[in-house]
Amino acid sequence: MKNWQITPTDKTASASIQGRIDNKTKPPGALGQLEALALQLALIQQQERLEVSRPVVLVFAGDHGVAAEGISIAPSEVTTQMVANFLAGGAAINCFCRVNDVELSVIDAGIKLPLPTDTPLLVNQSVGNGTENLAKQSAMTAEQLEQCLSLGADIAQHQIDKGSNVLSFGEMGIGNTTSAAAILAALTGASVSQCVGRGTGITDEQLNKKTELVEQALSRFDERDPYSVLQQVGGFEIAQICGAMLRCAEQKITIVVDGFIVSAAAMLAHRINENALDYMVFAHCSHESGHQLMLETLKVESLLDLGLRLGEGTGGALALPLIRAAACFYNDMATFESAGVTV
Amino acid sequence: MKNWQITPTDKTASASIQGRIDNKTKPPGALGQLEALALQLALIQQQERLEVSRPVVLVFAGDHGVAAEGISIAPSEVTTQMVANFLAGGAAINCFCRVNDVELSVIDAGIKLPLPTDTPLLVNQSVGNGTENLAKQSAMTAEQLEQCLSLGADIAQHQIDKGSNVLSFGEMGIGNTTSAAAILAALTGASVSQCVGRGTGITDEQLNKKTELVEQALSRFDERDPYSVLQQVGGFEIAQICGAMLRCAEQKITIVVDGFIVSAAAMLAHRINENALDYMVFAHCSHESGHQLMLETLKVESLLDLGLRLGEGTGGALALPLIRAAACFYNDMATFESAGVTV
Repeated sequence: MKNWQITPTDKTASASIQGRIDNKTKPPGALGQLEALALQLALIQQQERLEVSRPVVLVFAGDHGVAAEGISIAPSEVTTQMVANFLAGGAAINCFCRVNDVELSVIDAGIKLPLPTDTPLLVNQSVGNGTENLAKQSAMTAEQLEQCLSLGADIAQHQIDKGSNVLSFGEMGIGNTTSAAAILAALTGASVSQCVGRGTGITDEQLNKKTELVEQALSRFDERDPYSVLQQVGGFEIAQICGAMLRCAEQKITIVVDGFIVSAAAMLAHRINENALDYMVFAHCSHESGHQLMLETLKVESLLDLGLRLGEGTGGALALPLIRAAACFYNDMATFESAGVTV
Repeated sequence: MKNWQITPTDKTASASIQGRIDNKTKPPGALGQLEALALQLALIQQQERLEVSRPVVLVFAGDHGVAAEGISIAPSEVTTQMVANFLAGGAAINCFCRVNDVELSVIDAGIKLPLPTDTPLLVNQSVGNGTENLAKQSAMTAEQLEQCLSLGADIAQHQIDKGSNVLSFGEMGIGNTTSAAAILAALTGASVSQCVGRGTGITDEQLNKKTELVEQALSRFDERDPYSVLQQVGGFEIAQICGAMLRCAEQKITIVVDGFIVSAAAMLAHRINENALDYMVFAHCSHESGHQLMLETLKVESLLDLGLRLGEGTGGALALPLIRAAACFYNDMATFESAGVTV
């Protein structure tokens, strides 16, 4: 697999950045998590004024063979229907991008029923009509995995070339909480029951079945390195997001991580190259039970905690104004001296 | 005191509003707190499309006689210095209003060192050069209290007349966490130590002194009705905010409640007329320890929890995009039928 060239942020700059934050007209620490966010952005950007340029949400869609087991609230066809909804502008992610002035791009990473690509909003980089059933066999081939990582990196690069320096990731894929739970369990060694949740609202019976399927999947293979895990139990959308995140980190571009599925991709990217974590902002804590475990494993704090469990990148789009706010106070707030405040 | 004419929202509309929310292209409840927020806005506005028109943050500033006891990190002069900072555009609240496209108005409700009023941003409705020391005597006279409520109502009306249908409240006043803690303790009967916190960052010694002063204040008088509490241990800024909130509720205008101090005003407004609560959106949970108790007492949930402890209305300004997002999904998200999604 590709040798990702990711430089960690230069932490020797932390003290001077923190000094600038502390000299703003507020008590030290009074802006809470926004101060940590401003520090992170300043470490990433290493420039006098922070910029949030052309922020964009990339929603990757992919189908999952495991969905045939009936462990989701809807069949795989709904992935395509929801992608069509994104393209028509009617989904939650469309609303949140519009209202927060964020660009949106929708990527077919491998949905079951492809859509005509006569709209500029849809990027077709499908590597297949859904993965295989991860409970029974490897979700994808080594070639598909390689393709996904490379296509993800390319689409991230395309957005960076268009001037975006904040890339936020979202997903759509019936069955993909099963894949994300399997990734979480495989990478952490946590019990499957800790990792599996109700997704968008399944029954007890479905939850038991889902747990069994993930256990079955993990018993199929022994390797726990990120590429093997991704190939064995991942999804096309998760793998493309992972590749896109790694490219962002290579290019020192801020990555906004949404909920459970996107965080699974973030965990994989972090395992592939731990420096990638320096570039990640965690938008929200999902209502999906395993997400908290992901955040704890990565030792990160999320910005929002609104009980969301929709995916699509909605948490990331909703967190964008907080990222802009952090940049703005860092750039423009007066210092005690400049404002003549004598605390 | 004035007999506030506040109609509760018409809860008989809840089922049909919830039905509209549930029919959007998402699993029921998947937008978490934003769904509850959209329901509340729809109950307040009772119209087909929700509107967030010319949202405005009103920052009320007032000084507190109790500050002379040295229980703050800064002397009263800093209130005026910070108001000057607001007027010059250099404070955190200026940044957050700018970045979120929110109007800002600063009101002198009674600061110690008045500023020249040659800027359109400053509204002078001072009722005195700071309150009396609440530990030793009534913070304000009955006339001042009446004036504050009436001036607060008037300035809210002025903003409503300018087209604002969402009013967010902020404050500045050295010493005002002491006043807010006293209000909380008086209204709830909770122990003073539960209500008093470190404000913007005082020492253990100052914290003990602050606790003693609040205990002293509460032992001075027996009445626990909201007007008496406000007069005895309130502040000019808190009383004007309270009046402004009550007018908003009379006019069916959404009230955005910031942190500890503004929530003290909200508790008072709620005690004066319990229907006022229907119009209040709680922006964030402050790092100030007593704020959680306020939210629990009012049985409300806040939108953000970022560890903020700055005041100025910063939490409210940061929550505005979430209010816009709730209105937007309610207005514009497709239904299952319109999008052809067959879940």
